[in-house]
Amino acid sequence: MQLAMIQDKIVAIEELEPVYFDRGTYFGDGVYEVLRSYDGKIFALEEHLQRFANSLAAIGITGVDIDQIRSRVQKAFDVANIPNAEIYFHITRGSALRKYICETELNPNFFLTIAELPDETEEKSKGIAVSTYPDWRWKRCDIKSLNLLPGVLARRDAAQKGCAEAILVDENGFITEGAASAFFAVFGQTLQTAPLTANILPSITRKFVIEAARNTGLKVIKESFTPQQASRADELFIAVSTKDIVPVVEFDGKLIGDGKPGKYTKLLTQEFYSFTS
Amino acid sequence: MQLAMIQDKIVAIEELEPVYFDRGTYFGDGVYEVLRSYDGKIFALEEHLQRFANSLAAIGITGVDIDQIRSRVQKAFDVANIPNAEIYFHITRGSALRKYICETELNPNFFLTIAELPDETEEKSKGIAVSTYPDWRWKRCDIKSLNLLPGVLARRDAAQKGCAEAILVDENGFITEGAASAFFAVFGQTLQTAPLTANILPSITRKFVIEAARNTGLKVIKESFTPQQASRADELFIAVSTKDIVPVVEFDGKLIGDGKPGKYTKLLTQEFYSFTS
Repeated sequence: MQLAMIQDKIVAIEELEPVYFDRGTYFGDGVYEVLRSYDGKIFALEEHLQRFANSLAAIGITGVDIDQIRSRVQKAFDVANIPNAEIYFHITRGSALRKYICETELNPNFFLTIAELPDETEEKSKGIAVSTYPDWRWKRCDIKSLNLLPGVLARRDAAQKGCAEAILVDENGFITEGAASAFFAVFGQTLQTAPLTANILPSITRKFVIEAARNTGLKVIKESFTPQQASRADELFIAVSTKDIVPVVEFDGKLIGDGKPGKYTKLLTQEFYSFTS
Repeated sequence: MQLAMIQDKIVAIEELEPVYFDRGTYFGDGVYEVLRSYDGKIFALEEHLQRFANSLAAIGITGVDIDQIRSRVQKAFDVANIPNAEIYFHITRGSALRKYICETELNPNFFLTIAELPDETEEKSKGIAVSTYPDWRWKRCDIKSLNLLPGVLARRDAAQKGCAEAILVDENGFITEGAASAFFAVFGQTLQTAPLTANILPSITRKFVIEAARNTGLKVIKESFTPQQASRADELFIAVSTKDIVPVVEFDGKLIGDGKPGKYTKLLTQEFYSFTS
């Protein structure tokens, strides 16, 4: 008799809902997005939907109607009525008994949550500490997939060191990005971040930061740099959809600048908000 | 109001069972095992439990009692009463609203399925075709984690080429292993497979194959080899818990030997069965 077991309880497989056989759990066989609203307006929805479509295509999940996803996001946002909301959604290839390849095309599973964003005022005004960790991720980080264990392990290590984010370092000693954020350094009047490759998520916040830089007189260089270079930067910050720009004031235990958020970081944050309002 | 959405249906988050918030789905934050029974006897249970304990420790899931896992597996096996069964189980870090790091320790989720093994007689008597694919996996494949999307993508590519398994090739041009199997070549009287590193799963079937080789007069070399070398091997086979040894008779479209399972592959299979009976 075909059976399943949940903790200590034995159940017939037929009695379990499809969610128990989600390929998202078995394989991480799905892709996701996280976005936010500012004062009742969803920010960069089209950019997120475009990236989501790219991720779906990259792993060969077909038949998803992006217009339908847009409607669902909008509907959830309208019903929730949270002005500053974090919206998470994913699609997995579907539910089935565990097999790498299913003979028949499955019906993809859509799942979304919407909740109020936590208050990050202190993080943003005081800045955060970060620590480095080896970049153990797979070789297609340009796909926003559910295979996020390397990020979890990196963040756990950072948390143990009292840090809010882990900055990932590749085999050649170069920083790729944060465990769940883009990473930027200011050297003099230059803003530097790693170039977009298969090892980097095409961050939407990163894109807007680079746009914002144009209005601040900062020159932008897309070139990898090392932890040693980062620790000597004038300013550091991370960029992520839910928090936009967060100053980094400590890097692997070393204070950055005078240990307070830098002037360009503040200027970029102001410029960034011109996009969101 | 905090909400979730499943396909087109909006639901209050509090109404959903914890399985919807499993970190296994959000992050692949869990580890698993697959094992089988032969004629009413579970094979290599202790080896699988030991590897499971190693995987749990490697990702920092604590407080799991391996004796309890053993009892659960045994209980499910007894109740199911399937002589030749495939047993799958995983543990995830637990269920919670999505956050990389949870402030409080969660209760790990255990999930198991048991089902009859499909008949693989034809695959084993005729052999299978395999094709190569880039090894896009993360850098800790020694941990048997739920981050398996690279294997899914590799298998999808193989299936499109009419192949039953994908053989993964690293950035340096060397074969690591199959998408979900160990990989072996016979050159003359030598059995060759890649050495165990952080890029290779410590396969239990691999271990028994190497033991079996001792009784066949084959010399064992643990050294990486290239697809070009593989395509010129006298024999090739994959090894995986659910199917033990499966001959490979075609590699990237090239016939291996005379296109039939080789003599050492058959001999090793016989020797392997001396362990399982």
